[in-house]
Amino acid sequence: MIDRTIIEAENAARQADLTADYDALGARLARRGLDIEALTARAMSFGVAVPSWGTGTGGTRFARFPGGGEPASITDKLDDCGVIHALTAATPRVSLHIPWDKADPALLREKAEEVGLGFDAMNSNTFQDQPDQGRSYKYGSLSHTDAATRRQAVEHNLECIEIGRAIGSRALTVWIGDGSNFPGQTSLSRQFDRYLDSMKAIYAGLPDDWRIFSEHKIYEPAFYSTVVQDWGTSLMTAQELGPKAQCLVDLGHHAPNVNIEMIVARLIRAGKLGGFHFNDSKYGDDDLDSGTVEPFRLFLVWNELVELEDAPGLDLAHMIDQSHNVTDPIESLIVSAVEIQRAYVQASLVDRAALAGFQAENDALMAAATLRAAFRTDVDPILQTARLRAGAAIDPVAAYRASGWRARVAARRPQAAGGGGGIV
Amino acid sequence: MIDRTIIEAENAARQADLTADYDALGARLARRGLDIEALTARAMSFGVAVPSWGTGTGGTRFARFPGGGEPASITDKLDDCGVIHALTAATPRVSLHIPWDKADPALLREKAEEVGLGFDAMNSNTFQDQPDQGRSYKYGSLSHTDAATRRQAVEHNLECIEIGRAIGSRALTVWIGDGSNFPGQTSLSRQFDRYLDSMKAIYAGLPDDWRIFSEHKIYEPAFYSTVVQDWGTSLMTAQELGPKAQCLVDLGHHAPNVNIEMIVARLIRAGKLGGFHFNDSKYGDDDLDSGTVEPFRLFLVWNELVELEDAPGLDLAHMIDQSHNVTDPIESLIVSAVEIQRAYVQASLVDRAALAGFQAENDALMAAATLRAAFRTDVDPILQTARLRAGAAIDPVAAYRASGWRARVAARRPQAAGGGGGIV
Amino acid sequence: MIDRTIIEAENAARQADLTADYDALGARLARRGLDIEALTARAMSFGVAVPSWGTGTGGTRFARFPGGGEPASITDKLDDCGVIHALTAATPRVSLHIPWDKADPALLREKAEEVGLGFDAMNSNTFQDQPDQGRSYKYGSLSHTDAATRRQAVEHNLECIEIGRAIGSRALTVWIGDGSNFPGQTSLSRQFDRYLDSMKAIYAGLPDDWRIFSEHKIYEPAFYSTVVQDWGTSLMTAQELGPKAQCLVDLGHHAPNVNIEMIVARLIRAGKLGGFHFNDSKYGDDDLDSGTVEPFRLFLVWNELVELEDAPGLDLAHMIDQSHNVTDPIESLIVSAVEIQRAYVQASLVDRAALAGFQAENDALMAAATLRAAFRTDVDPILQTARLRAGAAIDPVAAYRASGWRARVAARRPQAAGGGGGIV
Amino acid sequence: MIDRTIIEAENAARQADLTADYDALGARLARRGLDIEALTARAMSFGVAVPSWGTGTGGTRFARFPGGGEPASITDKLDDCGVIHALTAATPRVSLHIPWDKADPALLREKAEEVGLGFDAMNSNTFQDQPDQGRSYKYGSLSHTDAATRRQAVEHNLECIEIGRAIGSRALTVWIGDGSNFPGQTSLSRQFDRYLDSMKAIYAGLPDDWRIFSEHKIYEPAFYSTVVQDWGTSLMTAQELGPKAQCLVDLGHHAPNVNIEMIVARLIRAGKLGGFHFNDSKYGDDDLDSGTVEPFRLFLVWNELVELEDAPGLDLAHMIDQSHNVTDPIESLIVSAVEIQRAYVQASLVDRAALAGFQAENDALMAAATLRAAFRTDVDPILQTARLRAGAAIDPVAAYRASGWRARVAARRPQAAGGGGGIV
Repeated sequence: MIDRTIIEAENAARQADLTADYDALGARLARRGLDIEALTARAMSFGVAVPSWGTGTGGTRFARFPGGGEPASITDKLDDCGVIHALTAATPRVSLHIPWDKADPALLREKAEEVGLGFDAMNSNTFQDQPDQGRSYKYGSLSHTDAATRRQAVEHNLECIEIGRAIGSRALTVWIGDGSNFPGQTSLSRQFDRYLDSMKAIYAGLPDDWRIFSEHKIYEPAFYSTVVQDWGTSLMTAQELGPKAQCLVDLGHHAPNVNIEMIVARLIRAGKLGGFHFNDSKYGDDDLDSGTVEPFRLFLVWNELVELEDAPGLDLAHMIDQSHNVTDPIESLIVSAVEIQRAYVQASLVDRAALAGFQAENDALMAAATLRAAFRTDVDPILQTARLRAGAAIDPVAAYRASGWRARVAARRPQAAGGGGGIV
Repeated sequence: MIDRTIIEAENAARQADLTADYDALGARLARRGLDIEALTARAMSFGVAVPSWGTGTGGTRFARFPGGGEPASITDKLDDCGVIHALTAATPRVSLHIPWDKADPALLREKAEEVGLGFDAMNSNTFQDQPDQGRSYKYGSLSHTDAATRRQAVEHNLECIEIGRAIGSRALTVWIGDGSNFPGQTSLSRQFDRYLDSMKAIYAGLPDDWRIFSEHKIYEPAFYSTVVQDWGTSLMTAQELGPKAQCLVDLGHHAPNVNIEMIVARLIRAGKLGGFHFNDSKYGDDDLDSGTVEPFRLFLVWNELVELEDAPGLDLAHMIDQSHNVTDPIESLIVSAVEIQRAYVQASLVDRAALAGFQAENDALMAAATLRAAFRTDVDPILQTARLRAGAAIDPVAAYRASGWRARVAARRPQAAGGGGGIV
Repeated sequence: MIDRTIIEAENAARQADLTADYDALGARLARRGLDIEALTARAMSFGVAVPSWGTGTGGTRFARFPGGGEPASITDKLDDCGVIHALTAATPRVSLHIPWDKADPALLREKAEEVGLGFDAMNSNTFQDQPDQGRSYKYGSLSHTDAATRRQAVEHNLECIEIGRAIGSRALTVWIGDGSNFPGQTSLSRQFDRYLDSMKAIYAGLPDDWRIFSEHKIYEPAFYSTVVQDWGTSLMTAQELGPKAQCLVDLGHHAPNVNIEMIVARLIRAGKLGGFHFNDSKYGDDDLDSGTVEPFRLFLVWNELVELEDAPGLDLAHMIDQSHNVTDPIESLIVSAVEIQRAYVQASLVDRAALAGFQAENDALMAAATLRAAFRTDVDPILQTARLRAGAAIDPVAAYRASGWRARVAARRPQAAGGGGGIV
Repeated sequence: MIDRTIIEAENAARQADLTADYDALGARLARRGLDIEALTARAMSFGVAVPSWGTGTGGTRFARFPGGGEPASITDKLDDCGVIHALTAATPRVSLHIPWDKADPALLREKAEEVGLGFDAMNSNTFQDQPDQGRSYKYGSLSHTDAATRRQAVEHNLECIEIGRAIGSRALTVWIGDGSNFPGQTSLSRQFDRYLDSMKAIYAGLPDDWRIFSEHKIYEPAFYSTVVQDWGTSLMTAQELGPKAQCLVDLGHHAPNVNIEMIVARLIRAGKLGGFHFNDSKYGDDDLDSGTVEPFRLFLVWNELVELEDAPGLDLAHMIDQSHNVTDPIESLIVSAVEIQRAYVQASLVDRAALAGFQAENDALMAAATLRAAFRTDVDPILQTARLRAGAAIDPVAAYRASGWRARVAARRPQAAGGGGGIV
């Protein structure tokens, strides 16, 4: 793992400046009636799960260009996740993907404990065929026209629950690529009926203290219709299944221009918001690093979450879900965790009393200015202090680079093969 | 009204060709196992409501360019609507907009009867301020922060119901422009709460045999958030109100790329599809003539409606909702009614048994080809025969032009003023 | 005008805090090798033109809700523009729109001088019909099928040049709404040919020291095709006209997801970027206040402008072009000018040497982080100091409200009528 | 290859019906002043190239699900392409992709001759790394920051030209995935400069009778910026290179809502339209079968091509470019070729004199109706007759299935492996 003396040396070089910045920010916030210590405490309480698969280099259907030292096993992935949490103190849990991460649960628990991590929601995979698989998902899984294929997909999800129980997870996220590429290829209504039937079978196998998350996506890998295409269909699904079913919002899974923060507010009102997959995007499901393309959008999502944080029963599962194609995945996950945490802290310093007053008076200009004032506050000193106090790095990317981790693991992990994605 | 001898003369000139075309099509359909007479009967059973306001020239925020003979009153509008139905036999009802069409109900009933029309859903208007209005809707109506403004908007809707009862309508369509232009301007959650409270007050005043339609729209006139922004929110509204509340789908009110036919299928499954506002569009809520920009999309919507036409309790209110900026509005409404009817008939000749078989076998190519085969069948002879048999015009636009209607009314109606839309 | 003692009193109350903030920021920037004084000087050199029409409340095709004290004449508008510049020191010029602002040039010059303003680009209007106009623009203007209508539109543009010469303007911006609403309505190719012919006739009348700006827009008011639909067509136009012709980029005039900063870079390379219309948007040409919806996008545009600011011959005309529907227009213009200036200053503190280094090494993560570090720097102290030193207000909205300007002019200007936009 | 007796038997079973349909359509067209024989001759003159790689099953970044009998070599691919042409008589040429199709040119020529095909444009590949490649394209190819990498990419393109010369090709299509995933990752301007330099080096190696096609794409595989992002940049490229450089339009490579037929018209006016990559899409670059999602859009593109077919120097290279994920690729290519041909014939029966008249009079309704009348004409009898007369199949998919081709090659070709696309 990362040598703590490196983190400490890196921090030592930055601490005086940080103190000055923290004090100046504290004074400025105090003038606005805000206690910087309370904000730092909120920052320290923040955590977002890291996806095990995010530690490998991702790709597109055109190509994948792996770097050196790619993780070759779930053990390697957990090592990398441990590095991220050691440096950020913001990613205490890992989310597994089955069958990619299938392993002896006891070993998983042991390894996670070793690197200081817990397990978040389990993720099933019925959008790819595995070598040993009886029936193909080429034409769908939970919504397939063939009952035996649906049953196979249901059983895979039940197995994910079993593995999850053994390692201390408490939720299952279901995302399927089922849909169609051509008008007419499937019956839009009957395909949804079949999907609901399969989901009910999975729901029936859900332990009492578990939740199941339904994740919507407008398109890809299906290009004409997708069974769970939007939050409306996801809501219908969660309503039909029962109280343990909730909706998961992936920021990149919407039509162009859609106001995602409204969806957040609506799902909270419906009592059905379960959590998030964080990432950023400009065009489609680009799976870019969180907060790198539209940081204000990320802030606006958090603004809803903070405004409604006392909604009855709200218990959100936050996860990063990104594809790291041109960066060191560890660095992208570090940056993303920090950017998500940043938006949370920025949203936490909105002057909600003033905002509510401006809203009540329809003073649109000042209401909007109140939000923007929070967004443009540079809360880096808060985030840095939170990390410092938690024993992590003031500048986690610098510390990571200083640690030489990537070169170290590149020396002992096999070189991954690139390849052509979905194109021959 | 239109002189029947003109229609008859126009029809006489086309009848021989029509007979030949009808016979040729009949033979071709027979080979596919389809009875042309049954399809013609379906075409004759079709009806779509015309919006009273659609008979005037519309405009954009930049300008409005009225033509000659614009209707100056609801009486004029009903005359124009009567012309459309006389020529198409496809638009038996008119949908009124209050306060634009406010008049003595007895006179409305009498005039409608005179021109051979009934009344469809009532439409309320809380997106504009009227001269005599106590409170402004600048910052919202049913969701306004001010209780008195909400009450005013509720009462306006109750008045629409009263007028509707007096003229034989059985439904109220509620569309509001409420929302916000800037992040922070309103609380997305509290604004929706206020909207639901207002809608419940209207619902409480709904007669037992009435329905209330909730209409969603992604944006415009509000440009950052809209209270009922999508079908998910519309569904939540209808669910919260009760069994008499349903969702209305306007084809132009969605984000780019959204698969509207899926929404249709979902709302039918939820038992909450109430009806449609038909139009076409390329960019936003363009309100173009139905079937002129993406005719295949219109067909795919109808394909769902025909596939699911036996869904329990399905009772749809179909209306045209367009803005006619560069055409004679009567002509645009004629063309639109025919195009909607065309899509209905095309969807009716889909070989559903073959389609279901291809879908069951995942023969995507043949399933898609089956739909396309129906779409590309030129059903003009069926539509023309349906009109001929109903006493309408084989070529309704030609007959309309031959009738000289527009010149006639231009001589007796005042010239409308143009103007600059929302721009000074 | 605004009483200077009010500005001074408002500034006095904020000056101590500003000094502290400015010093803290200066120290922090110095650590990054940046001189806060140089940045303040850049801020003070910044200017963006205000559109005369922006001082009135705008609207949509659904409605317009004017406030109190709307300007009733170009004199009133210039007064309002003078207020904005007095408070921000960032809007030294006004852009006129003919015929809305037609008046005796000598009086225009005199009034502008009185309120401390100059004149920016002239704007012609051939998207509305004026009462005294011979031919209608319902079916187009510079690209109309009728030669006499095209001639009328050309002559109107030539008249705009004449007025502009008399008041010291040096540029003409041409934006037309010409296009079509239906496939087939116009010949896409011949309509463009006619447009180019008309533009050449205008170009022939352009003084040697003038420029003509071609402004593209994807849609609205035309909904199927628009003659100058994108920057490619605008570039072809500018290339065909000659060296005095350049392209103007309105931030809201693009298809969803389009990368506007790339267009900026391309047009600069082609030697054809003439200037900007600033605003913000979420869905279409929403004309919202600059920097309120996607502030990072505004920053990225400025990042290109700063990176390429030494491109040969680059001489940009910056203007705000917004519709203020729910705010006091003066306040929206103040906020917008400040947000545009903010993005300029943020882009000015990008560490370009470091950025170029990361780019050269394909260190995508650090390159992106370098841009974000500039963006999230809160440069308010710089902007406030720039205003203070220029005799304007540290907090211009607060000073404006303290001045009571709106109430004062509401008492002497007539109440504007609202209305229904493009809808009857 | 396909046994001709099967085609003949299949045709024999359909010939009587076809004769009846052809005669009925001929009579109907004659009434509209159209000669069906001339249209059939046009259909017979039509040809579109097939991409060699299109004969294999494609995939997404999530997965690829190959079918049986996938082509394992360029010989297999040419066999499959030969089958398509034998059945449709509409795909006389194949477009190769290097290095996927690299082989001895003499053998390529011989094999192509054997299956009755010629060679269309060559396609280079610098968006994937090949096993033996010196430098990686992870961070770009022709626009890479590293000169040696750019040189390698240039040389690969020059090699494609060499291979093309040896097999009788006359054009090179250049599409690169270069761009960036994050704001700041690259200098948008310098990256384009480097691209242009590389393209000039390729252009310098272009034989006199060759053309080079620049293909734009808004995004993917790069997700923030793409060097040749739209037709404007493609046009600048072609202008800078010289007369042998032209622009290639792939129908799926545009932002949502973009009017592609306008781009076609503009590029023709600029003398820079080189050809097309045909496919269809609903969301992004979905690469679906041509004419299956928005058939009217395909028609409108062809409407421009037919309207402007006499433009000086117009010489278009038509190719299909699709990914066949859920169908037999041969069947998808058959259907696509037929749909493209269909749109061409439909566009050919537009009454252009009537259309021009309506356009001149601004009779928007009748102009639009004129286009739609052509589109909804079912020209199947023309296409079927064209195939019959050329010795191909009236119903090519039925004949293909009857031939048992897929089962036959599945028995002799190795089973392809599926896989996980760009995702681990």
